[in-house]
Parts: sequence; structure tokens; C-alpha cells
Amino acid sequence: MSKNKEKVDLEAMRHSCSHVLAQAVLDMFPEAKLAIGPCIDDGFYYDFDLPRTLIPEDLPLLEKRMKQIVKQNQKFVEKKEPADKALEFLEMTGQKYKAELVKEFAKDGKEISFYENVMHGDGKAAFVDLCEGKHVEHTGQIGPFKLLKISGAYWKGDEKNPMLQRIYGTCWHTREELDAYLKQLAEAKKRDHRKLGVQLDLIRFHDISPGSVFFLPKGTIVFNKLIEFLRKEYVKREYDEVITPLVYDKSLWETSGHWEHYKDNMFQVDMDGKEASLKPMNCPSHMLMYKMHLKSYRDLPVRIADFAMLHRNELRGALGGMTRVRKFCMDDAHCFVTPEQIEDEILACIDFVQFVYKEVFDFEYDVVLSTKPEKAMGTDEQWDNAEKALASALKKGKIDYELNPGDGAFYGPKIDFKIRDSLKREWQCATVQIDFQMPERFGLEYEGKDGKSHTPIVIHRAILGSLERFMAILIEHYAGALPLWLSPVQAKILPVSEKFNDYAEKVAKELKAKDIRVEIDASNETLGKKIRNAEMQKSPYMLVVGEKEVADKTVAVRDYATKEQEVMTLQDFLKGIEADLVVGQ
Amino acid sequence: MSKNKEKVDLEAMRHSCSHVLAQAVLDMFPEAKLAIGPCIDDGFYYDFDLPRTLIPEDLPLLEKRMKQIVKQNQKFVEKKEPADKALEFLEMTGQKYKAELVKEFAKDGKEISFYENVMHGDGKAAFVDLCEGKHVEHTGQIGPFKLLKISGAYWKGDEKNPMLQRIYGTCWHTREELDAYLKQLAEAKKRDHRKLGVQLDLIRFHDISPGSVFFLPKGTIVFNKLIEFLRKEYVKREYDEVITPLVYDKSLWETSGHWEHYKDNMFQVDMDGKEASLKPMNCPSHMLMYKMHLKSYRDLPVRIADFAMLHRNELRGALGGMTRVRKFCMDDAHCFVTPEQIEDEILACIDFVQFVYKEVFDFEYDVVLSTKPEKAMGTDEQWDNAEKALASALKKGKIDYELNPGDGAFYGPKIDFKIRDSLKREWQCATVQIDFQMPERFGLEYEGKDGKSHTPIVIHRAILGSLERFMAILIEHYAGALPLWLSPVQAKILPVSEKFNDYAEKVAKELKAKDIRVEIDASNETLGKKIRNAEMQKSPYMLVVGEKEVADKTVAVRDYATKEQEVMTLQDFLKGIEADLVVGQ
Repeated sequence: MSKNKEKVDLEAMRHSCSHVLAQAVLDMFPEAKLAIGPCIDDGFYYDFDLPRTLIPEDLPLLEKRMKQIVKQNQKFVEKKEPADKALEFLEMTGQKYKAELVKEFAKDGKEISFYENVMHGDGKAAFVDLCEGKHVEHTGQIGPFKLLKISGAYWKGDEKNPMLQRIYGTCWHTREELDAYLKQLAEAKKRDHRKLGVQLDLIRFHDISPGSVFFLPKGTIVFNKLIEFLRKEYVKREYDEVITPLVYDKSLWETSGHWEHYKDNMFQVDMDGKEASLKPMNCPSHMLMYKMHLKSYRDLPVRIADFAMLHRNELRGALGGMTRVRKFCMDDAHCFVTPEQIEDEILACIDFVQFVYKEVFDFEYDVVLSTKPEKAMGTDEQWDNAEKALASALKKGKIDYELNPGDGAFYGPKIDFKIRDSLKREWQCATVQIDFQMPERFGLEYEGKDGKSHTPIVIHRAILGSLERFMAILIEHYAGALPLWLSPVQAKILPVSEKFNDYAEKVAKELKAKDIRVEIDASNETLGKKIRNAEMQKSPYMLVVGEKEVADKTVAVRDYATKEQEVMTLQDFLKGIEADLVVGQ
Repeated sequence: MSKNKEKVDLEAMRHSCSHVLAQAVLDMFPEAKLAIGPCIDDGFYYDFDLPRTLIPEDLPLLEKRMKQIVKQNQKFVEKKEPADKALEFLEMTGQKYKAELVKEFAKDGKEISFYENVMHGDGKAAFVDLCEGKHVEHTGQIGPFKLLKISGAYWKGDEKNPMLQRIYGTCWHTREELDAYLKQLAEAKKRDHRKLGVQLDLIRFHDISPGSVFFLPKGTIVFNKLIEFLRKEYVKREYDEVITPLVYDKSLWETSGHWEHYKDNMFQVDMDGKEASLKPMNCPSHMLMYKMHLKSYRDLPVRIADFAMLHRNELRGALGGMTRVRKFCMDDAHCFVTPEQIEDEILACIDFVQFVYKEVFDFEYDVVLSTKPEKAMGTDEQWDNAEKALASALKKGKIDYELNPGDGAFYGPKIDFKIRDSLKREWQCATVQIDFQMPERFGLEYEGKDGKSHTPIVIHRAILGSLERFMAILIEHYAGALPLWLSPVQAKILPVSEKFNDYAEKVAKELKAKDIRVEIDASNETLGKKIRNAEMQKSPYMLVVGEKEVADKTVAVRDYATKEQEVMTLQDFLKGIEADLVVGQ
């Protein structure tokens, strides 16, 4: 049987499992109205309109009923009906959401597809659902499953529609796979930056400004250190940082095209009785900056970087943690180049990304090259050249990449970098995009070698992407134990008792003089409690000081990562961490 | 005669001079309508409604006529009229602005005061103006004067009213004083940050975002260095930096009182269909941050600092340069203290201000203590204690100060610091203010030694004030030649000819490795031209490299300040500037 399950299609199995869930829900609440129940990454969900709010205790009851259904080996049988008959059936059974869907499908004039769960033996239908498939042959082919959580969801995702109850579940070929998945889920939950961010006193959220992170002092240190690191790299890599306004008259967005395509995503501001917007991205303002000086080919490449706070008016319901925000800072930059410089500049961007991902954070990552989409601006020649430049740079950089034909931006092809974190989850962060359109829209120019005016090409590139989002990834990747150079508290000093507070102060002073971020736990707790508290805060080093340490002028260094403890002088401690304090050298 | 002039009141003399100007304008344009003509700091102005736009060439003609009037020793004679008669006279002579003023004055039921300029001899009135005085006895008492400039000004400063033409002038007791003033004016004009800021490639402005500075790469370096410096001090002085949202729901401003008193100054933003505003100051958000943790008296003082971008909807007509902006960053912080901690905290704030003004920038400054105003919130006891704490801190700090009774904020007394720049102009920058009100409005608490809940007191304090404005002051104070640690280009390398470009590159590389900001002038210009260009850019050091320097492995260092040149090794150069590179150590 298990063998059999491994052969069945995973998506079909999960979709079938969602039908089994719906059948179990109908058994529990005969008046339940069904909405939709698709399979998703790693599982499935089903949305219901129910007579009462579900409680966590309902899930085991539903699972129990589902297991019975699985054991019954109910057959999945497709049945086609004309639209009017289908509608009549659904309205009769009170399935108003399904009826609404049929009305939409009916426009195509096609027959409507149902799936019945037919009982082994009497051939009666135990359950029937409006559905286009695909399914396994019978419920017995459904592998080990688990219902995960209940949440609210608007019908069709629109907040003007009724709120439904969504049940999430997962389903796998084998018990081992299910267990591994549940374990990973538990680990991800433990590492959730929304939870860890609060526990580690990095961030808070507040309804007074939904989607904007409040960075507490410790979170601010991490954020500022990321920027400080990038600034150092900018000096090395000859980027020019600028500071730009946040509110712009609508005419800027008309030139850039955002007014037409992106207006609803921008926060509107009344400025001098005229329409203006908070900027959602830096590109248009950097086009203005480029134009503030005359340029010759000798001045290119010009690389303009910015840490401006960007605002995007995301739907309130879509906001969550630091990954889905309304206010964020992006480490984006715009490199203005001549056509001849594209390849070298792309190579330099790739080098920057690799340096940060490999050398600094040791992330694994995948690279994807996306080419001309169907709807694209610019000539075929421009696209050809740009795509060749990207491919050639990747080849020269000896970088394996996946081709994603037709997935480029409308203004040019791009290379995306997807990092894999310690839980093997993928995050799209860095991007390198070629753009022929924006420079033309803004009428950018440089004087070429020929003395004539030319239009530069722009390379949009981000390394970390949104700093807020990258910080969330780091928190989850490192389970909160950030690398030394990013740690808000690099060394926590733990006096064994109050008697040693003075010595602790002395140690703290010496470390501060070396720019080490320290905290002393001068509370009345026992050493054991102090150590446990410090571990909760995930400080890379604890320095325990007691009688022996005072006498020998040493500290007992406890390493968070290895849990090892070693007594040494402060000088030796400093020497030992020297290399980890600096980054990107 | 000159002796006589020195005795007359300066304000009366300048006000009288504005009447002489009006008389001269009426001679030139009999149809001119007069608006107002007060004396101001260092001079006077008069606003006119004229049949044509004035041109600079008009000013000498007017001055010539004014000198004739001065020579005529016309007597200033006050004349009172009932309001109806005054109005009749002004309407008859077509002086509609004056007539409008009389209508306003008439509400008080008082007689209306005019000043006539009576000719010596025939006793005829050469000029009459609606005016409450005061004036000199006769025009012969008016000292040396000069008309300075023409500008536009709305009637009553309201952009809905007609635009008038304003003529500015100045007037002094002696020729020497006038000359000194004009010289200072010329110097100030040369140092004007709006001009120097562009010449030095620090900043730009653009109509697409009025009142927001575009910081070019070099301006960004200065801005970032100021913040970097403050951050280092924050670590030493135990301030916690935070990062806060920029847009807040109106309920925050209702709690803080801004919605009632400051709404028109805030940019409004639609957030989730509700009213929200871009923050004009950090205080309310820091009250929220304070509340994000429970606090005990052991945690105080808590010092929260922020470099958030603030927005204030100033009238477009009032905007100018970096001193009157809509978007700015303030180095403000809020110190939350117990009543017992007020004095020490004030002392620490004063120490911070003195350190920055004296040690770092060597500014002269005056200190003003402002006490309880008529309309004030809080008890007399609170005010007494707070004023005593401020005065006592000033005394302990051995700081001379001026008392400004009744000029405190409505929420508490304050100490202001006014710096004097190299042209002896005063700028109010740092402020230290005690606030009992905001913590109560936000319901802030800490657990006292008695185990009970108490409300902390807040000290609002800013050191530089608006960073944009402070940068403008620095540019003007140093005439663009910023201190080494703030200079965007610390050393400009000038190869004598192209042959030495390689050596210049080598020198640049070595300096960059030591974090020195360098630029090479690799153009084809002569050395003389290169030096002149570098002087225009006011780089603190020029390093000239030619045959001799290559052979000896040296550089010829030219000091911008002293204009002296000395040949030395790079090591000696670096050693020589070492102390000036670091600041605030």
C-alpha cells in the first residue's frame, strides 16, 4: 500500500486529501458551505462557511473522521453536467459559493465537472464536489496527512466579501516525509522572526502604523550595521551614495510611468494643493540625480546608491512581520553605463552579490536568467545585446544558472539570485536588471567619444533587497544567533554574584573601549539563571566573572555556538574574536 | 551732523528712511500704492504696488532722490485724524492698502495716526503716510543708507493676496558702520550655502519636491559623517538609537495634541481609508517606544534618539535653501527620567552641547533660560522644580546665561543655545526642554522604589537641531572649507602632467587604504588651472606630484588654509593629519 502511495502524484494526493477534509467537515456540520480547496506548496487548504468558529480541538476530530474515509477506499469518479443542471443541483444543496463559481464557468459554455466519492460496495456517493481534478483513484491512496491550522480568509481574497474559515493541512507519501516536514515546520515556527524579533528585543509592531517596523535599540544596531557594511563596500566598489526626497509631485511618476501602472500602490500626499506621492522605489529620483550634472562617456559608469525609506501601500490584510511591509529600505543602486560597459558592470554586480552571499553570509543560492517577455518595450537588437551581456557575464563568472525564458521585466532582461536558508527555504533577494526604457523616458544623455549625445543604459541592482526582509531572513536563518559583527550584544558579562559587579564594570569598560557591544547582568539571579537568560538572548559570548577571575585578571568565556567554556585574559579573548568582528575585508 | 545722527535711535532712523524711500518711489511712480514699510534687523523695507516691475537700475535713481530728501531736512510731524476722515483721505488718494489697514484699526475706535514730512520753509507736506511712528525729528538726522535689493512679497504675506514689490534697504549711524555692514553682507553672499552648496556639488534643489534637499554624493558624505559622529557620542553617552515609522494614524496625533494644534503643518496621507500624517517630529513615536517595555526606576534614565526624516508642510513661499525646508532630519532625543534625575540629566545634555559646540566646532554661543509662560500646563510646583533644576544645572556647569522670563514652552521651561558664526550671525540650534505633559498624555509609567507606578519626566533635547540647517550653517561659517573630518574630498591629487597619472593612482590607492577620501585631477589642464580648480572645491589638501616627487617617493602638500606648500613622504603627510581626521575623541 505504501509503495502504491509513493507512485501517486503528490499534487493529486493533496488535492484529494482536501476533498476528504471537506467530506469530514460536512459530516460535522451538515449546513457547511464549501468554497475552494486547492493543493498548495507542501499541502492543501479548504475554505468553509460554517455555523460556528472552529477551535483547535476540532482538528483531531476531523482528522479521525478523515482517517475513516481514507480506510473506506472511496473511489474518485468524475461526472460532467450541463451548467444549468449543475447550478440547479448546487442551489438546491445550498452550496452558494460553488454556485457562484459555476455561473462564472458557464460563460465558457463548457460542461461542468464534478468529482464524486463513491463508496466501495453499494456504489453510493459519500461526497460530491465541484472540481476539475486531478485526483488519486481512491481515498486509500492518500498518504499520511496532518491538519495544521485554522485561519480566516475572505471569499475570493476580497475584504468586501464574507470572511470564511480556512483549514490548512499537509499530506506526504510516507510517514517519514510527514514527520520530517512537521519537524521543519516546528523549527521554522521557533525561528519565526516575528516571535524571535520580539523575544530578542529587536523589533515591535503597532497598529498605529501598520506595516512599518518599530526597530528597538537592538534591532536598530543590526539594521545600521548592515548599512555600515554596505557603505564600506560602496566606497571600495566606487558607488556614490545620495540622499533624496521622499515626496514627489505626480509629474515625476507620470514621466516614470508609475502614475499609470502603480498609482494604487503609492501613498498619496497633498502637496501645495497638488497630487504627490511617497516614493515606492528609488529609480525615478536617481534619474533626476543623474541629470543634475552634464556627463561625458569618461564619467561612466556612474553608480548611484540610496538608503531612502520607501513606502508601498500594500493591502492591510497582506501585511506580516518584516517580510510584508509598507515602509522599507532597499539597498538598491542604479549603474548608468555605455553599451560597451554593460557586461563588465553586470560582472561587477555579480561579484558584489557573490561576495555578500558567499563570503559574508555563506548562503547557498540559485541563479536565474529571465529573458524577453511577450509584452516588452525596446528593439529586438537591444534585447539580444542585453541578454547576451547577461549570459556572457554569467559564463565569465563561471556561474551555473537556470534559464527562465519570457520572465524578464518589460523594460529588460534580468538575473535573480535566490538564497536558500538553513531550513532550505528559498528567498529571492538580489536582482540585476538591465533597463533601456527609463533613461529614454527621462531623456538622460552623455556625450560619447564621437562628441554626440547618447542615451545611457541603466542597471538596476539590489544586493540584500529590502533590508527589513533580509533582516527577517537572517534572524530565521541563524535562529536569532546572528554573526558576531551583527550581534546587538556581542558579550554578556555575568558576575557570579554582586561582589563581582565592580570587576564586571571594569571588564565592560575595557571592551567598550575596543568598540565591543556589552551588557552586564547585575541582577540578583543565580549564575545558572543568568546563563539561561543570556542564552535566550543568544549573545555570542558570555563572560562569567567570579573570585578566580578577579584574582587572575581573567574571564571565563562561554561560547554560545559550541557551549564550550574557557578561562582566558581579556587580551586573549579580544584576539580570538578579532577576525569575526570585521566583515567584508 | 554726524555726531547728531549717532545719538538718534537706530530703529527710528531706519523707519524714517523707509518713509524717505516711499516718498522717492511716489516721485518716480505717482500712481504707486503703498503697503507697509517697517524697520527690520539691520535695516528696513517697504512694499509697493507699482505700474511696472522694478529693475536693479532703479535703485541708484531712488537713492539719488532719497539723498535730496535727506538734505531737505524735512520735519516728521504726527497728525491724528478720526477714522472716517482718514479713510476718506486714503480712498481719495487711491491708497487702497492703507485704507484696508485703517478699516482694521478703526475697530478699536481710536484716532488714526499719520506722519507728514513737512518742508523746511513753506511748511508744505512733501509726503504723508499712515504710520504710528516712531521717527527722527527731520530727514537730516538719517544716517548713511543703501538700498539693497528688490523682491516679491504678498500683501499681508498671504499668497491669495496680490504680489507686491518689496525694496530692502539699510541705514546706519556712520559711514564706517554702513561699509562694515555692506562688507559683511557681501561676505555672507559669497558664503551663501545655496550658492556654495551648488558650487561644491553638495546639494541641489528641484521643483518636483519643493523644500526637500537633494544631497549629491559629496553632500551625502557630509550629512552621513555628522550622523556617524553623533552615533559615536550616543554610544559613549548611553543613548539608544531607534528607527521609527514615518506615517501614523491620526489617533497618535490626537493623543499628542498635534491634531488639534499642528494639523495644518503636517502632510496628510490616506492610510486604509483613514486619516494619517507624515510625522513632523519624533516625540510622540518615542513615547510609544518607551511603552514597549515595562520600566522600573532602575532602568531610568532611558534616552531614545532617532534620525528619522521629518516632514513639515511649510508654505511654499517660505521655503529657502537648507534652512527653511519641508523634509529634514533632527538629531533629537528624549530622555525619560525620575524627578530626582532631572538636574543630572540636564547637566549631561549641556555637557553634550558644549562638547560639540566648543570642542568640535569651536563656535561661540549664548545660552538663554526661558521660564513659565502665561499659558502653561502643569502645576506651579512642577514648574518651580523644573526651573530650579535648569538654573542649578547651568550654575553647576558654570555657564553664563540670559533669563527670558515667560518664554518657555507651554509644557515646560527650556534652555536654548544660540551659536554665533564667523560672521557674528546668531543661529538658535541646540535646545534642552523639560516636559511634564507628554508623558501624562501617553500614560507613561515606571515602577518607583516604593513599588508604585509613577510618571517619568521627559527631556526633549537636540544638539545640532535640524541637520540640514546645521549643515547650511557649517558651510557658511567655514565659507565651504569644511573641517578635514567632514570634507567630502580630503586630498586632491594633482599630477603635474599626464606622465605622472600612474604615480597619482598609486598615491590615491595608499590613501584610500587609510580611509582618506581622495580625488585625482587627471585632466589635461595646466598645473596652475588644476590648483585653481581644487581651490574652488576647497579641498583641505592638494597633493602635487611631478618628476621630483616620483623620484623621491614624496608628495608636495599644499594646505588650503595656510596656502603653504611642503614636500614630504606620504607617511609624514598621514601622520600630520591624523589628529584632524578623528573627531570627538
